[in-house]
Amino acid sequence: MAETPYDTDNIFAKILRGEIPSHRVYEDEAVVAFMDVMPQGPGHTLVVPKAPSRNLLDADPSTFGPLFTVVQKVARAVKRGFGADGVTVMQFNEPASGQTVYHLHVHVIPRFDGIPLKPHTGGMEKPEVLAQNAEKIRAALRS
Amino acid sequence: MAETPYDTDNIFAKILRGEIPSHRVYEDEAVVAFMDVMPQGPGHTLVVPKAPSRNLLDADPSTFGPLFTVVQKVARAVKRGFGADGVTVMQFNEPASGQTVYHLHVHVIPRFDGIPLKPHTGGMEKPEVLAQNAEKIRAALRS
Repeated sequence: MAETPYDTDNIFAKILRGEIPSHRVYEDEAVVAFMDVMPQGPGHTLVVPKAPSRNLLDADPSTFGPLFTVVQKVARAVKRGFGADGVTVMQFNEPASGQTVYHLHVHVIPRFDGIPLKPHTGGMEKPEVLAQNAEKIRAALRS
Repeated sequence: MAETPYDTDNIFAKILRGEIPSHRVYEDEAVVAFMDVMPQGPGHTLVVPKAPSRNLLDADPSTFGPLFTVVQKVARAVKRGFGADGVTVMQFNEPASGQTVYHLHVHVIPRFDGIPLKPHTGGMEKPEVLAQNAEKIRAALRS
């Protein structure tokens, strides 16, 4: 199983370096969370470790504790902030799984009874909607 | 957000206590991995912490490092063992998200280019197929 090397110019690396803007909802020394710009539902958030890895397969295991502690914080916050009934957590490895950006990231998506996920290729959300949703999550993280 | 209490009679609690058989592929002091009996694809494995929690929302954060270290081991093993092109990792919280067993568990599913996931309600796999697939994963974990 040959490893594909990490590409330092992937879009999330650029977001982490501040070269591309994002709607950030959380940041600590190891992890950043920001809104997915092609959400599968309102409040769809990405949780991303600062340490570089292509996906979960090549990540340093020390990444996982801090990363999923933030996934939990964000999952609780989106559930509260959007009055959701549940939360879906997904992480894709390689194109066969649906991975499109090659920096490890975890999808955290609020879920509502009877409402299916939209496809991930459903189009770009309006920046003002993302900004509003980000503020709901920040407020829920503070409370 | 009222927490639903943990039900000690859920099926994964029974599997962890050895009251119900499973096709185990991995066990350490904190985590067990076994075959999903209603696989969404060949090699679909569940990674489960021994510590009781309903899902990710109420888990003790100390669970996550050991849990996802095993998710990584199993993800690498199913990719190698089944010659997969990718691996999908999913974790569901509450029925709106598709959760059906109320003990925290992580789905690890080998993926193949162009082959969609089967629905999770696709029916029970034959025990001899699960046994064979478990042996492939055990062999990949050893190598």
